[in-house]
Amino acid sequence: MTGDGAVTARVGILGGGQLGRMLALAGYPLGLRVRVLDPGADAPAAHCAEHIRAAYDDAAALERLAAGMDAVTFEFENVPETAARALAARVPVHPPPAALARAQDRVSEKTLFAEHALAVPPWRAVDDRAGLARAIAEIGAPAVLKTRRMGYDGKGQAVLRAGDEAALDAAWRAVGGAPSILEAFVPFEREVSLIGVRAQDGACVFYPLVENVHRAGILHRSLAPAPGADALQPAAEAAMRRILDALAYVGVLTIEFFVHQGRLLGNEMAPRVHNSGHWTIEGAVTSQFENHLRAVVGLPLGSTAVNGAAAMVNLIGSIPAPAAVLAIPGAHLHLYGKASRPGRKVGHITVVAADARRLAEPLARVEALVG
Amino acid sequence: MTGDGAVTARVGILGGGQLGRMLALAGYPLGLRVRVLDPGADAPAAHCAEHIRAAYDDAAALERLAAGMDAVTFEFENVPETAARALAARVPVHPPPAALARAQDRVSEKTLFAEHALAVPPWRAVDDRAGLARAIAEIGAPAVLKTRRMGYDGKGQAVLRAGDEAALDAAWRAVGGAPSILEAFVPFEREVSLIGVRAQDGACVFYPLVENVHRAGILHRSLAPAPGADALQPAAEAAMRRILDALAYVGVLTIEFFVHQGRLLGNEMAPRVHNSGHWTIEGAVTSQFENHLRAVVGLPLGSTAVNGAAAMVNLIGSIPAPAAVLAIPGAHLHLYGKASRPGRKVGHITVVAADARRLAEPLARVEALVG
Repeated sequence: MTGDGAVTARVGILGGGQLGRMLALAGYPLGLRVRVLDPGADAPAAHCAEHIRAAYDDAAALERLAAGMDAVTFEFENVPETAARALAARVPVHPPPAALARAQDRVSEKTLFAEHALAVPPWRAVDDRAGLARAIAEIGAPAVLKTRRMGYDGKGQAVLRAGDEAALDAAWRAVGGAPSILEAFVPFEREVSLIGVRAQDGACVFYPLVENVHRAGILHRSLAPAPGADALQPAAEAAMRRILDALAYVGVLTIEFFVHQGRLLGNEMAPRVHNSGHWTIEGAVTSQFENHLRAVVGLPLGSTAVNGAAAMVNLIGSIPAPAAVLAIPGAHLHLYGKASRPGRKVGHITVVAADARRLAEPLARVEALVG
Repeated sequence: MTGDGAVTARVGILGGGQLGRMLALAGYPLGLRVRVLDPGADAPAAHCAEHIRAAYDDAAALERLAAGMDAVTFEFENVPETAARALAARVPVHPPPAALARAQDRVSEKTLFAEHALAVPPWRAVDDRAGLARAIAEIGAPAVLKTRRMGYDGKGQAVLRAGDEAALDAAWRAVGGAPSILEAFVPFEREVSLIGVRAQDGACVFYPLVENVHRAGILHRSLAPAPGADALQPAAEAAMRRILDALAYVGVLTIEFFVHQGRLLGNEMAPRVHNSGHWTIEGAVTSQFENHLRAVVGLPLGSTAVNGAAAMVNLIGSIPAPAAVLAIPGAHLHLYGKASRPGRKVGHITVVAADARRLAEPLARVEALVG
């Protein structure tokens, strides 16, 4: 840390989307200065932080991002690992590039889960069309075919409802013939996620499990704590702690789970702050954004206790009238400064109440507005 | 409001200090874009908002501040009234310049309080040395002589412990012979402040009364709610509401009171967000900064309910080690990005707990750190 009084530390962020924006906003009160690298002219974080506009693999731009920084982090997992490693040669990079690499490849990710005794649905790596036929024969339909790399919000995925040749052909076309993974379709009861944070000294804190509802493959709503979280929390935390320690991880890690027959199955992980943790800005004592930054610059982690109960609803593609949102008791509006476009995350609304029972009515009003 | 989806509204702020910085940070989630005018090269708000560097009376700079804005507000009360009126001819200015004018002159301020049935300590306007002698004869010592205009954090003040000629000479020198006000020194039990917000439609919300402790004329600590606030709250709110309505006020207004023999006496007002309201960022459902902006851009006001109990301690002149602050449960650090200098407000710490009893221990730890 530079510690000159005016600045606690300087942090570079690969990516300047809404996650980078919320990181920057959480950083100022801590005395941090944030610089983002993002190819977009109107990146959401560029409104409130220094912005280097360049591609993620632009070596000169990466040097400029790192220059004078105390640490560099990233706000999405599709940063080229080479870029992260080039940065790590110049400046501390948190989380470690190795974690990025594990999360970028679904096969590597599933293997990581299995290595640390986190059960996963049956899966097979699929390298070609013949491999797909073998995999479906072994796992059975229904199953989900996903590209191994660069999947995001349901893109690059195909659901196989049957194992016939026509279905296999269609699925193989949907993933563009890229190296893929076939995952058994688990008739799970629900999806939950765990957000944990590991500090540089190995201390870990965890937020309560959150229940997530998706629509068209995009997160629609998170509820915190997830109903019945207490019964699942110890196993979820234990699995994440093994993974955090194994990776010598620093920062926020998110793991999404299916709950199947009352048990947790690892679905995927994100080595970054996560959409299912946005509720922590108002709903927890310390937000995921602040805790991520605290970890990255070597400060002690903050309390993850929940202020009652909270729900987050994403704004996808359009924004309801701000006045209508803010008229709902306990509702907090978060806009990302992005132009509206179908399927695009342009903001979210968080509702906080004293307990889950009292959350129901304002949450219903938010859902009615969002439609 | 522009309402193009990416931007809810654009707000210009006269002044780019820590108040402007916290306004800007509160504005982004609402989809606001903020532009500040401040003569300082390293103004705290300039790190996270567009910055026009110019003097407050620079007519061309005021035009640039207003250009394209939906509204303009200010973050300190010593903005030249002429500047506020020039802006108001181009763009809505909230709070109204008339409120600024009333607050800039202690005689005008005291008169306003009296007009709206808010009791004040005995006072006399003092225009010259002879007037000072007359005033002290009428009011008696001890008394406080203050310049009518531009007083801030105890500057331009002199305490008169006795009414002899030597004391009068010294006091008159201390205020530089400027038009002044002599206020009877009231042996008050304590100081409290009320922060209220009035929306464009006249709706008002009020935070609970806060108890303030000053050191060397600078706010040291605020405690929210003030012990015994309930008994004083109705009278404080009623007085403020009369003043808000009379001024057709829009935005946050702060009134500081003395509590004397269990009654409220108006001390001074600030037509802006206030240091004694910084605890609202974590300690209330909606912060004073967000509520001020909501009022300024015509959005509904948010809940002022307190999340348990909160205290704010100012960091004056120096910053304790951030790691030591953040290790205290419930403590939140707010640094302003300012170089440390004796007597300068460089940040604050807010502590939040479930109730006043549980606030005591972490608050004692904060006080021990701040010294």
